[in-house]
Amino acid sequence: ESPPLFILGPCVIESREHAFDIAGALAEMRDRLNLPFVFKASYDKANRSSGKSFRGIGISAGLSILEDIRARYSFPVISDVHDGAQVAEASSVLDILQIPALLSRQTDLLEAAARSGKLVHIKKGQFMAPEDMSNVVKKMEEAGCDQLMLCERGISFGYHTLVVDFRSLPIMSSFGYPIIFDATHAVQSPGGSGDRSGGDRRFAPSLARAALAVGCQGLFMEVHPDPDHAPSDGPNMIPLSKLEALIAGLLPFHEARKKMGPDPLFGQGGS
Amino acid sequence: ESPPLFILGPCVIESREHAFDIAGALAEMRDRLNLPFVFKASYDKANRSSGKSFRGIGISAGLSILEDIRARYSFPVISDVHDGAQVAEASSVLDILQIPALLSRQTDLLEAAARSGKLVHIKKGQFMAPEDMSNVVKKMEEAGCDQLMLCERGISFGYHTLVVDFRSLPIMSSFGYPIIFDATHAVQSPGGSGDRSGGDRRFAPSLARAALAVGCQGLFMEVHPDPDHAPSDGPNMIPLSKLEALIAGLLPFHEARKKMGPDPLFGQGGS
Amino acid sequence: ESPPLFILGPCVIESREHAFDIAGALAEMRDRLNLPFVFKASYDKANRSSGKSFRGIGISAGLSILEDIRARYSFPVISDVHDGAQVAEASSVLDILQIPALLSRQTDLLEAAARSGKLVHIKKGQFMAPEDMSNVVKKMEEAGCDQLMLCERGISFGYHTLVVDFRSLPIMSSFGYPIIFDATHAVQSPGGSGDRSGGDRRFAPSLARAALAVGCQGLFMEVHPDPDHAPSDGPNMIPLSKLEALIAGLLPFHEARKKMGPDPLFGQGGS
Amino acid sequence: ESPPLFILGPCVIESREHAFDIAGALAEMRDRLNLPFVFKASYDKANRSSGKSFRGIGISAGLSILEDIRARYSFPVISDVHDGAQVAEASSVLDILQIPALLSRQTDLLEAAARSGKLVHIKKGQFMAPEDMSNVVKKMEEAGCDQLMLCERGISFGYHTLVVDFRSLPIMSSFGYPIIFDATHAVQSPGGSGDRSGGDRRFAPSLARAALAVGCQGLFMEVHPDPDHAPSDGPNMIPLSKLEALIAGLLPFHEARKKMGPDPLFGQGGS
Repeated sequence: ESPPLFILGPCVIESREHAFDIAGALAEMRDRLNLPFVFKASYDKANRSSGKSFRGIGISAGLSILEDIRARYSFPVISDVHDGAQVAEASSVLDILQIPALLSRQTDLLEAAARSGKLVHIKKGQFMAPEDMSNVVKKMEEAGCDQLMLCERGISFGYHTLVVDFRSLPIMSSFGYPIIFDATHAVQSPGGSGDRSGGDRRFAPSLARAALAVGCQGLFMEVHPDPDHAPSDGPNMIPLSKLEALIAGLLPFHEARKKMGPDPLFGQGGS
Repeated sequence: ESPPLFILGPCVIESREHAFDIAGALAEMRDRLNLPFVFKASYDKANRSSGKSFRGIGISAGLSILEDIRARYSFPVISDVHDGAQVAEASSVLDILQIPALLSRQTDLLEAAARSGKLVHIKKGQFMAPEDMSNVVKKMEEAGCDQLMLCERGISFGYHTLVVDFRSLPIMSSFGYPIIFDATHAVQSPGGSGDRSGGDRRFAPSLARAALAVGCQGLFMEVHPDPDHAPSDGPNMIPLSKLEALIAGLLPFHEARKKMGPDPLFGQGGS
Repeated sequence: ESPPLFILGPCVIESREHAFDIAGALAEMRDRLNLPFVFKASYDKANRSSGKSFRGIGISAGLSILEDIRARYSFPVISDVHDGAQVAEASSVLDILQIPALLSRQTDLLEAAARSGKLVHIKKGQFMAPEDMSNVVKKMEEAGCDQLMLCERGISFGYHTLVVDFRSLPIMSSFGYPIIFDATHAVQSPGGSGDRSGGDRRFAPSLARAALAVGCQGLFMEVHPDPDHAPSDGPNMIPLSKLEALIAGLLPFHEARKKMGPDPLFGQGGS
Repeated sequence: ESPPLFILGPCVIESREHAFDIAGALAEMRDRLNLPFVFKASYDKANRSSGKSFRGIGISAGLSILEDIRARYSFPVISDVHDGAQVAEASSVLDILQIPALLSRQTDLLEAAARSGKLVHIKKGQFMAPEDMSNVVKKMEEAGCDQLMLCERGISFGYHTLVVDFRSLPIMSSFGYPIIFDATHAVQSPGGSGDRSGGDRRFAPSLARAALAVGCQGLFMEVHPDPDHAPSDGPNMIPLSKLEALIAGLLPFHEARKKMGPDPLFGQGGS
């Protein structure tokens, strides 16, 4: 009855045609599976490892493409905002504003997003304990925002490695907002390939199942028709051709979790 | 058709009566749930944080109790071995020899256990990457052991904290042996209470669900009728009164995982 | 002959008088010790743990105070910049622009700072391996900046804890720019006090000695007349009354390192 | 007046001749530098990554060689003990018993070593917070040992990586016993080369300088005439040909630390 939300799309808008192709494929999948999909793509990768990496097509061109995808395929659309000055323009198109993990403690950005009136999706920083997200939540609430989703995307574990501490899901859930698990950034290896980030997408489905079994309200996964040749985050993106089977395989874990009710030892926070 | 193995029991044998009480309660639960239970209890806690902590009743008295529990309740029994010299005596009673995580790289102990002809349950060290368990597996195989189970119980994450990297399950699974997830030691806080280890049992069920959803063949959980007054590992043990509901809540995740078949991106290792 | 650079001052400008008092005390100390001091104070704490924390007096008022301190006490002055839009105004006063650690991968900010023509002090992110700072250095060089200092301030180590990996000093030194060690943020406990960061200043002198012995060109330390009542970073700031003895105790380690020449195994990078 | 203690030698006794060659070279160096050297070599590597790795020549042959080196070159000798049963035999020859880091919480081994009447050198486990070594110290004291040295050799930091948290030196120093810094194991990469441990010796001198500057009473360094072809720990051992210059370069940092007196903020613990 209440399926998980899926936030899906390529890491970055490579071109109008490319983004439309992916959105079209996702729209068909959504209709076959009858699940709530949100289309995600970035117009600007503002914190690439290297300054020579592809950054995207820019805010205006990117928002225009997202607006058209939204209209053409009836998708809610989400994208990153990187500073307070971008929020007004981004809010004119996006259904959900996303705060990148590295910026999750930047008060000005958070407050600008909070004041937009939009749903805001905040990724927990790779340097933050889950309980510390309560401070972020309070910053948002004090700025008038009551539409939030909190995202786990892994935490620094030595060099070039992230690990997911699944205890973060019940902890953050206890703050009262939906929890999204970012299954593809969680398997990233930051800076692990010298001038770019590496990763290993083979583990993304395992971690996605774990997240649903622990208890979360949605999954974020980057997908690409040809991830091994993608300009950004290729090693961890899911091939579009594998996505539908992957999602179908995940649903029973969400259903089992829904049927279970509150966690026997943690209580409501675990649900 | 192939339910998970449950390895259950108190951290340490406090007395014959205490161990029998717990074993009796577990035997009834096993019969009601019709699940394979193994009885676990240590006769010696050889690596307590403090030298003043309760260590257990010793190998001979402990094995005698385990032997009687085995006979009385038809349980396979498992306990820790701490050096090669203990293996012969322990093997005369135990069905499964357990190698403690801190000793998982001690070659003499591993080889003595391998030569016992018993099933050996090896916990991955809190300082080891999952792929490095392949060296441990090779040590065992070269010593003639082909009956192994490998256990994830968390890895050091800063001070006084463990984190479970669930990628370890498919990685270790690819070595060809069953994987057990230790849900109660994984939520331990080593040395976190000064002269003893702390922990937070509230997270054990969440992590157990995650492990079954990722894919494992069994769960290890320490249980106690009154964990808050237990002499060892109290903060992470599961109250006996909560265990049956907890286990019932876990089974659907194992069933969903069994139905799913091989992991879509990882393949057999993920099963 | 070539003493270390000292970047010193309060975490945040609390008021004009407060900043002048500290600057005056530092100026006297500088003259007694005959050492190069830079005055540091933030006009805006843009990433406080909590939105209710004191953020500072704002960019215009803050820059005006820094400008006056610069004139009055002949100090070079340094402060944080948080987004590209602040760079022009900040550059009109500051001698050195500082990039906060959490923002050390934000390309727009880095490039704006690079184009300012000012010396730029970049703190390595708490989530970055030292070798990955080479990408940051390349971003700066490609944007035309050849006046850089790189700063070690600790890396995430579990929750609420930073650790300094001193291997980062020779590694970053090999990129060809001076290395600064931030001895007071390195002993911070991020988010470790619930709605604020904790820390333990008692370790700052030890780590400062270590940094000079390994090899660095300067030290960054936050100081305050009454740190236990400071609005920000109190637990790790050095009491002003202890500073002069502390600095005097550090100099012999810098001199010993200078005398030693290149590191016997690492070579020039270690110098 | 009170130079640091140097514990030096190959990781493992490869043969009588090999050990004597190294001991002879170290004896000449000791006499030239007029410093206290202890000869270290293991007769058994009981926890190699792989069961196929060279383990050493065994306890009896090994102790016989160490006894002869002790007599021939007037060296105190130190070696690892791995279980309580070895302690009596080892104590008949060794001046110092060393507890390996992975075994630093094994109560039986600690108590056997404590009762030997020998000086005991305990390496802090790669999974232990420095304050938790107070429990180990208490175990030793309660077993009647008042001759102890505590060793920092790095702590787990993600996979295949150790980091040295130099705050551990003043913390452990406050327990009242001398602190040794193990500069070559600290740069190990455990399991980092598949079936063996990797490492990077280039960083050992930097970390040794840091340790002396923070404050320690001795250094442990493994040395080898040809480390790149050594059967164990090659990547982090120091080439014998570089050792004398390395040690000469370290002494000024120890002298500066001695001259400084108690740490200005930490107090005696830092000395």
